[in-house]
Amino acid sequence: MPSDRHHTRRARLIAAVKKAQLDLLIVSHPPNVTYLTGFTGDASCLLIGPKRTLMVSDSRFETQLADECPGVATEIRTAKTQSADFLAEILGKLGMKRIGFESAYTTVASQTGLAEKVTDVVFTPSTGLVEELRQIKDSEEIAAIRDAIYLAERGYSVLRALMLPDMTEREAAHELEHAMRRFGALRAAFEPIIGVGPQAALPHYRAGLHLLKEAPFVLIDWGAVEPGGYHSDLTRVVSTSKIPPKLDKLHRVVMNARQAALDAIRPGAACQLVDAAARKVIDDAGFGKSFGHGLGHGIGLEIHESTRFSPLSKETLQPGMVLTVEPGIYLPGFGGVRLEDDVLITRDGYEVLSSVPLEL
Amino acid sequence: MPSDRHHTRRARLIAAVKKAQLDLLIVSHPPNVTYLTGFTGDASCLLIGPKRTLMVSDSRFETQLADECPGVATEIRTAKTQSADFLAEILGKLGMKRIGFESAYTTVASQTGLAEKVTDVVFTPSTGLVEELRQIKDSEEIAAIRDAIYLAERGYSVLRALMLPDMTEREAAHELEHAMRRFGALRAAFEPIIGVGPQAALPHYRAGLHLLKEAPFVLIDWGAVEPGGYHSDLTRVVSTSKIPPKLDKLHRVVMNARQAALDAIRPGAACQLVDAAARKVIDDAGFGKSFGHGLGHGIGLEIHESTRFSPLSKETLQPGMVLTVEPGIYLPGFGGVRLEDDVLITRDGYEVLSSVPLEL
Repeated sequence: MPSDRHHTRRARLIAAVKKAQLDLLIVSHPPNVTYLTGFTGDASCLLIGPKRTLMVSDSRFETQLADECPGVATEIRTAKTQSADFLAEILGKLGMKRIGFESAYTTVASQTGLAEKVTDVVFTPSTGLVEELRQIKDSEEIAAIRDAIYLAERGYSVLRALMLPDMTEREAAHELEHAMRRFGALRAAFEPIIGVGPQAALPHYRAGLHLLKEAPFVLIDWGAVEPGGYHSDLTRVVSTSKIPPKLDKLHRVVMNARQAALDAIRPGAACQLVDAAARKVIDDAGFGKSFGHGLGHGIGLEIHESTRFSPLSKETLQPGMVLTVEPGIYLPGFGGVRLEDDVLITRDGYEVLSSVPLEL
Repeated sequence: MPSDRHHTRRARLIAAVKKAQLDLLIVSHPPNVTYLTGFTGDASCLLIGPKRTLMVSDSRFETQLADECPGVATEIRTAKTQSADFLAEILGKLGMKRIGFESAYTTVASQTGLAEKVTDVVFTPSTGLVEELRQIKDSEEIAAIRDAIYLAERGYSVLRALMLPDMTEREAAHELEHAMRRFGALRAAFEPIIGVGPQAALPHYRAGLHLLKEAPFVLIDWGAVEPGGYHSDLTRVVSTSKIPPKLDKLHRVVMNARQAALDAIRPGAACQLVDAAARKVIDDAGFGKSFGHGLGHGIGLEIHESTRFSPLSKETLQPGMVLTVEPGIYLPGFGGVRLEDDVLITRDGYEVLSSVPLEL
């Protein structure tokens, strides 16, 4: 990725830092650092503000920093200094007054330690400044998400071809991850959820020791991370023998809920109303109590990002956002159906980026 | 694992909570919760003190909690309440005065939010209470670590058998993880480090796109997580063609450093002196500046745990501790040698739990 993209992102953040009346923001959440600099290592933070931008890292990452973010000034710690002392020393020298920190990612212990070492600074908790920028994806980020979807879909095809009745959910999950990696994924976007029959009713089940043959269907929720760190997130339900009529019914309702959500998606639409559109279909079919989670979430450098489709959402859709749409119905003891796709908000509507068949 | 083991652990922690003059401790770090209860899910916390022990979780984990920790009282949140509000409500009802929280794992944002909601409590930062207990492994934990080592070693044998000159480091890492999983590992203990030639000089390198044939040797640092969550951590250097004399020399020095460390290991030995014993061998051979990290670290439910072999260690070895011993020499541009084993401290000395051949 060319560094001028990162430069533009940093310029936008600097404007937000200024607006928040901060002299400097300590960006320590690794995906935020990656977003702003292209650096893919960890244990490093970016100090950024109207007057200074400085990466604080250690000697393990010296070569990588030079490769990945050539335009960014760096301070490199050696093994002789502890990282907290090193950061304190740098902040002390900068002589700035109001310094923000990412309070949703900074532990009480580390922030207390820093404040004890740097006494002439007003440390100010800050949340969401970088996350807000990350909501709108640029063309390279969208291309990366397309790639992450491609890797997930190729892996899924391999899994479908490999499935055997005596395979456990966990073995299937491992084959799926291995296949995605074979196509170039860094890793699975999360531990794949593979739930046979009744396990499909548990939205946060992990692949366990049930055999695929134990029930006539299996729910698969999976994704890939492409080499640049972007995620995909998909769910399908696969019938492995004769389709039970009850499953078929749930599937039809969820398909309709999905379509209702898509029909409501356009720039300017309230996220809450998109959620409501899908929820109404499920409610009207009598399964309102069996759809216990939000309709979707942003994806990008993390598997769950800002912008949510939920009854509590306050956000409005904008072109460049990428969210999952994942209505579901879960019946304890029987199973469940969830259909999850990744959807790009475009200037005049939406594009479903994923293309795995929806059929059972 | 029988729940009386967890009961014993909780009883020990309650004594420590009492000694710290707390009425209650909020245990939120997932490996700490697992250690105390056997619960393997996440997003849950254990409230524990002399008067009450209570697991706070949500409806996704209700069945799992009943299965994994039958003896523990639980409060289950439904989707209608936010988790922070739910915890605040419970703490409010308990009517306790001094409540500790794990400050090394609690973010400023969540702790500030909690303190705003529960105003009649003195929240006290606490560190290391559970971690201190976790330093000493019981017989079932040692058996689990042995299993994690077995899984890593079986996977390594498969990788050795699969290696091809045109394989990339990353492909090799993926084959290694897939093989460990095939034998029953939940996952790799961390993204395996596989570094060809000069990449072996970077202690925190990740497997990249170099081909195995690019240099006559490769460094492999890997481990497995067994089904109960315990980790192993091993490193070997493998020669893939004629052994370069320089590599052979480094290897001999590191072998001697390893033996010097083992000779110093016994209950009551200062961790600092074990580190020093290995470091002296490397210093004496003229490579003192090329061994930039500590000699080892505890392993268990996490890949890096309390008890360290380092020049800064203040701890003393006790029976039941399990640590890595991993001396290394790194020459930028050429490569490096690190030999890492997992070592149990016994009543009268030590046992090297790992058994992969040390030869190049």
